[in-house]
Amino acid sequence: MIPLSAPSRVITAGAGLLDEALAAQAVPTTPVDWRPPLPGTAEALVKVLADPRRQAANELAAGRLTAARPYLVGVRRASEVLAEGTFLHAGPPISWERASGPMRGALIGAMLLEGLAGDERDAEARLVAGLAAGEIALRPCHEHATVGPMAGVVSPSMWLFEVRDEEHGGTAYCSLNEGLGKVLRYGAYGPEVLERLRWMDEVLGPALAATLELAGPIDLRALMAQALQMGDELHNRNRAATSLLLRELAPYVVEAAPGSAAQVLRFINGNDHFFLNAGMAAAKVSTDAARDIPGSSMVVAMARNGTDFGVQVSGLGGRWFTGPAGVPDGLYLGSYGPEDANPDIGDSTITETSGLGGFAMAASPAIVRFVGGEVADAVRATRSMYEITLAEHPAYQIPGLGFRGTPAGIDVTLVARTGLLPVVNTGIAGRVPGTGQVGAGLVRPPAEAFVSALLALADAVTDPFE
Amino acid sequence: MIPLSAPSRVITAGAGLLDEALAAQAVPTTPVDWRPPLPGTAEALVKVLADPRRQAANELAAGRLTAARPYLVGVRRASEVLAEGTFLHAGPPISWERASGPMRGALIGAMLLEGLAGDERDAEARLVAGLAAGEIALRPCHEHATVGPMAGVVSPSMWLFEVRDEEHGGTAYCSLNEGLGKVLRYGAYGPEVLERLRWMDEVLGPALAATLELAGPIDLRALMAQALQMGDELHNRNRAATSLLLRELAPYVVEAAPGSAAQVLRFINGNDHFFLNAGMAAAKVSTDAARDIPGSSMVVAMARNGTDFGVQVSGLGGRWFTGPAGVPDGLYLGSYGPEDANPDIGDSTITETSGLGGFAMAASPAIVRFVGGEVADAVRATRSMYEITLAEHPAYQIPGLGFRGTPAGIDVTLVARTGLLPVVNTGIAGRVPGTGQVGAGLVRPPAEAFVSALLALADAVTDPFE
Repeated sequence: MIPLSAPSRVITAGAGLLDEALAAQAVPTTPVDWRPPLPGTAEALVKVLADPRRQAANELAAGRLTAARPYLVGVRRASEVLAEGTFLHAGPPISWERASGPMRGALIGAMLLEGLAGDERDAEARLVAGLAAGEIALRPCHEHATVGPMAGVVSPSMWLFEVRDEEHGGTAYCSLNEGLGKVLRYGAYGPEVLERLRWMDEVLGPALAATLELAGPIDLRALMAQALQMGDELHNRNRAATSLLLRELAPYVVEAAPGSAAQVLRFINGNDHFFLNAGMAAAKVSTDAARDIPGSSMVVAMARNGTDFGVQVSGLGGRWFTGPAGVPDGLYLGSYGPEDANPDIGDSTITETSGLGGFAMAASPAIVRFVGGEVADAVRATRSMYEITLAEHPAYQIPGLGFRGTPAGIDVTLVARTGLLPVVNTGIAGRVPGTGQVGAGLVRPPAEAFVSALLALADAVTDPFE
Repeated sequence: MIPLSAPSRVITAGAGLLDEALAAQAVPTTPVDWRPPLPGTAEALVKVLADPRRQAANELAAGRLTAARPYLVGVRRASEVLAEGTFLHAGPPISWERASGPMRGALIGAMLLEGLAGDERDAEARLVAGLAAGEIALRPCHEHATVGPMAGVVSPSMWLFEVRDEEHGGTAYCSLNEGLGKVLRYGAYGPEVLERLRWMDEVLGPALAATLELAGPIDLRALMAQALQMGDELHNRNRAATSLLLRELAPYVVEAAPGSAAQVLRFINGNDHFFLNAGMAAAKVSTDAARDIPGSSMVVAMARNGTDFGVQVSGLGGRWFTGPAGVPDGLYLGSYGPEDANPDIGDSTITETSGLGGFAMAASPAIVRFVGGEVADAVRATRSMYEITLAEHPAYQIPGLGFRGTPAGIDVTLVARTGLLPVVNTGIAGRVPGTGQVGAGLVRPPAEAFVSALLALADAVTDPFE
């Protein structure tokens, strides 16, 4: 019964039915989200929330994440840091047998690039045989202080951004971005893909390495803070950050690599996602600073291999908690549609893990033209992420929200309590190997990854009465 | 008497007192701005509003303004387009006697740059004598298809952006931006100012001219549309547009001027306002396309010389309607304060005339850190400008307002009817010659400029019964 004798305000919780009914009667309402906790988490939640270490551990974790000062210190060939015969890939560990189309496509491409196979079939046969014989190793990027977008395959002839956290001393790597269209990270491995990768190995990599030696470290925290004020969310939109990095490096490119400067600058200008990989390494080095804090329920990695979506938690070491990767909901290129989409893939969710990407969409109203939806949806996505995060980032601010810091540091207990899953902003790969990108959109991680992480946190709580 | 027996909504108009009183009683209100028309305009308004040519003329004017397609086609030395002995300046015509400190400072600097005087005193004496003898002419930029920021002084050794409207065929020019701190346009003329201008004449100008010849025309409409989606309002914030222009030109700078490419790229990267002048020429060529339409009450220029604020109207040819320039309200640099400020100066109000700058502040929430106020003020400023404009720009859109076009084409009758004066976003010059920039902020034009324009429009109405 709604009293109508005075101006009323009704707070409606949960499902929208009541709210809509009242709105239809012109009763002012204040809708409030309410969702039940994730199923099967009640007991574990009680135990984890009562863990006396939790609060201090999470404060430390979120503090280290948001205090990190990532600097781009160099560009180096993966062969310098990667053992021969090792291929890195995105997401949690995966076997060839369970690997999706774009993951297989990217691995085939890497075999061809490295001259380890003559053609596609040969590459596949040698991969299977090499893996069985232990001559080839397939390892997650995350286990090698590295991240890779989409398939995330890194082989020795690829070059990496090297990012150092000047606050805590960590180092992280990410491959160089190949550009758009048919590219290895989306599972394409045709001649134009390999030709581009060879040019990147012979020209781009050495030129950028020389440029960074001359330019000295680039403060990525400052650059990314600027880019957020310029409409990037730093996952699916990197136009501002790419522009800011290019303008900072341009004079040094000319001085360090005069012969290839025009080519290099043209390549970077041709790809608005060029910055993404540097930003991913910055996010990786920042979340790594928050790892291994006993009792912390903060997420330090979210990553997908195209089959599984995996989560790592600060208090639980290097363990992965996984569930099936979903198919993003978004806008498709050309005549592609959802039936062409591979499940969610890539380490680029490290941006969301650090409070960027889907979490910073309110800074990027123009992103809706790329991933779908309305500007209000983007603002709502960011606002809802404050419900499941531990901190507001002091440097990464959203002008449109009155310079509020981005929501940073996902807490597994808050996810379980609210049932609110992280918002991920992502590219969509074609599921058939060799296709490339088919779209971009939004996706949520599988709830089971967070449920199993929570159960593991509960198991790890030391009962003071035992 | 407010009925309280049912949920009420009260629409409050005008002064905020009633609205605040109701809000204090928790009565929901919908405040609506209402302001009395500008004093002394009632009779003229009736006459101008009844002018049968008005609607079609304004549709044509606004249509031409918003259909303009400005392209950056070249960079050329002012000596190519400017007669010897002529100095251009910002704003409506002004004599040396009435010129403000920064205007005098910039003219002294131009005399020194051109080698026409040995020192400051000598320059001043020769200027006064030359003007009296008719050997030196002081002309508004606007009369030479040119605009100049702040003092806007253009002398033959300066280089100009050349912008062509590919839709209507017009051409407009604007000087190259010198950077920040002590610069001629803010009235400084010390050795470092002149040294920089000489380098711009000898190195930057020729390098950019060669670069543009190689790069071909740059689509400024597309670039500016992008920059609005990246947090620029294109008057006081040009960081995105500068970045986009630099990244577009960089490969061509390397190819066209290899010897000076690093210097040139470093200079552009060092100045986030570098794009402003190209944007001003784009705005000038767009507003010029809407000139001289009989019966149109649309403003085609707003410009200040540091003493007077002047307005030109499409239906009234080259006539200026002026009032005293006000002192901007904003943020001051270092220990400067309002007592150091010169009245409003510069042709950069051409951005507001074309629907950018203060009119597009909602696209630029970060601008409030530069000009003061809150993000909500920036949004409110843009929203209020829809009240006095004829069109929403089809290409220049504001993502945060759901991609609504910027308010473009100020109508003198709407200004007079609402009493709402254009919002101008501006830099603040020191009033003592030689000082340079002291701050940035917001300013409103003097109402009398619009009142006298309206009276002239009324005079120009042909009475069908006479």
